[in-house]
Amino acid sequence: MRLGTIQQADGSRAVIVGVSETEAAVVEGFADLGDLIEHPDGLALASKAKAQSGRISLDGVHWLPPLRRPGKILGVALNNSANPDRIMQGPSTPAMFVKPSSSLVGHGQPIRVKERYGRVHPEPELTVVIGTGGAELTIDEAPGHVFGYTIMNDLTSPTMRGDDTFHYRAIHPDPDDPNGIRYVDSWVSYPARYKGADTFGPLGPWVVTTDEVPDPHALRIQCRHDGRVVTDDNTGNLRFSVAEVVSFTSQYLTLEPGDVIAMGTALRASAKGGAVQNVDLVRLGGTVEVEIEGIGVLSNPVEHH
Amino acid sequence: MRLGTIQQADGSRAVIVGVSETEAAVVEGFADLGDLIEHPDGLALASKAKAQSGRISLDGVHWLPPLRRPGKILGVALNNSANPDRIMQGPSTPAMFVKPSSSLVGHGQPIRVKERYGRVHPEPELTVVIGTGGAELTIDEAPGHVFGYTIMNDLTSPTMRGDDTFHYRAIHPDPDDPNGIRYVDSWVSYPARYKGADTFGPLGPWVVTTDEVPDPHALRIQCRHDGRVVTDDNTGNLRFSVAEVVSFTSQYLTLEPGDVIAMGTALRASAKGGAVQNVDLVRLGGTVEVEIEGIGVLSNPVEHH
Repeated sequence: MRLGTIQQADGSRAVIVGVSETEAAVVEGFADLGDLIEHPDGLALASKAKAQSGRISLDGVHWLPPLRRPGKILGVALNNSANPDRIMQGPSTPAMFVKPSSSLVGHGQPIRVKERYGRVHPEPELTVVIGTGGAELTIDEAPGHVFGYTIMNDLTSPTMRGDDTFHYRAIHPDPDDPNGIRYVDSWVSYPARYKGADTFGPLGPWVVTTDEVPDPHALRIQCRHDGRVVTDDNTGNLRFSVAEVVSFTSQYLTLEPGDVIAMGTALRASAKGGAVQNVDLVRLGGTVEVEIEGIGVLSNPVEHH
Repeated sequence: MRLGTIQQADGSRAVIVGVSETEAAVVEGFADLGDLIEHPDGLALASKAKAQSGRISLDGVHWLPPLRRPGKILGVALNNSANPDRIMQGPSTPAMFVKPSSSLVGHGQPIRVKERYGRVHPEPELTVVIGTGGAELTIDEAPGHVFGYTIMNDLTSPTMRGDDTFHYRAIHPDPDDPNGIRYVDSWVSYPARYKGADTFGPLGPWVVTTDEVPDPHALRIQCRHDGRVVTDDNTGNLRFSVAEVVSFTSQYLTLEPGDVIAMGTALRASAKGGAVQNVDLVRLGGTVEVEIEGIGVLSNPVEHH
């Protein structure tokens, strides 16, 4: 089942896609796929809508992010196995950041960049949507909590990342004195701007339920800029699997229905050369597409503001 | 006006506090202060509730975070002027991270720590709640977009911060070759766990509207652990002001009604010695209080899980 959220003249609606090649049907009563996921009969009502509702053409439809305001949007950092020699020091578990919901935009909607952002590049990512919430999930339990998969273009500004990095003396307790402190030379970086600026989270076009994605780790994933292939990789190259990431996250952050987890960037550059880091959208503009086999194509034009 | 959110047997309610010394009144029609902030007549309805509604005793009331699910919760990093020599390299503008709404807990509710978190310490912070949303706000415009002030205990695990820090070779574009890349020795750290674990965001008890806080930069702020003063500082020691932070943020992230911005930690240790970093709640347990002059006292017991 393919489910999304669209904007209509009088408000937003959850829709089921694939009623025909070019049509969807509104699932009445839900302003958002997030509401449908939280409803105990959401999937049954979507099936019914597919059979019974009036159809709407996908042509020219205004897509919203399938989840407009998830409880949390997590991104897994550096989660690829293509280039392990790049990491000189790092955790042996998934490291994550949070993107704000104000950064989300739907399929077809503009990525709005500003000169002050410095460089901004795309990052094509398989993205998990949580169905049933939970905490302390085992790796075996984790897949049962996934509602489906979608695509995120996890836009990133390396310029703002550099700007918001500190080299400083962190205060740590002195092990020899319960009231004493010592300084430890440390680096920290803060992702709110460089991962969370407005429109830095294109998401969609829709969510494909897990029954239609038998193996989320065998999907070709491409990133294209103005039709040119920038990344051609496979979700099999992710370092931590969906089950590992969902289970690990739930040991620390309780997962809630509709939570979004972007799994990290497929990294390998295309045979034609170039890397996502070469695609500076502030300088180049154009249109970015992310395609994942069996899920769809997420396409967004760049606007300069 | 002091406004909060409480849990009642049949659901959550927005309340106005200060009907008397020990009583509040339910503002009917709002499950959450966030809903009230988004309503054009929210403040008028709260005033009316104060005059007319049945009173409820504050004794034993179950406080929820005043905002249960804000669009975003931002925290400003290293925003104090007490110790500038600690920073060897860093931005000249506010750097921020995002906390997930699943980390919030209300006044009086337990902070639940786990052995696997390593060390966890409190951080007492003046916290802004946005009233009217906006983008590209000037410093002069910014204060008009603040609804009020509350308190966050921005719990932090330096252990998980260290674990989720990478030293790696970042991929940057090669300035001499449009398809070429070069590696740049970099450090990044990811805050989802160390700032965002469950119950790492005690918030409240309530929000005080701006009319009752004539100068947010002249407020004594204390952090106490089991009654012992750990921090005794003043919001005058913040490096970036509320107006500067709100304006700067809005150049990158559109602000929405009910958004929360924790302004950063007051840093100075108390005369009695010790620093927040000495208060490892995983090892010590106990109760943490944050008091801000004119706002209130946020108190949370620690539970070990």
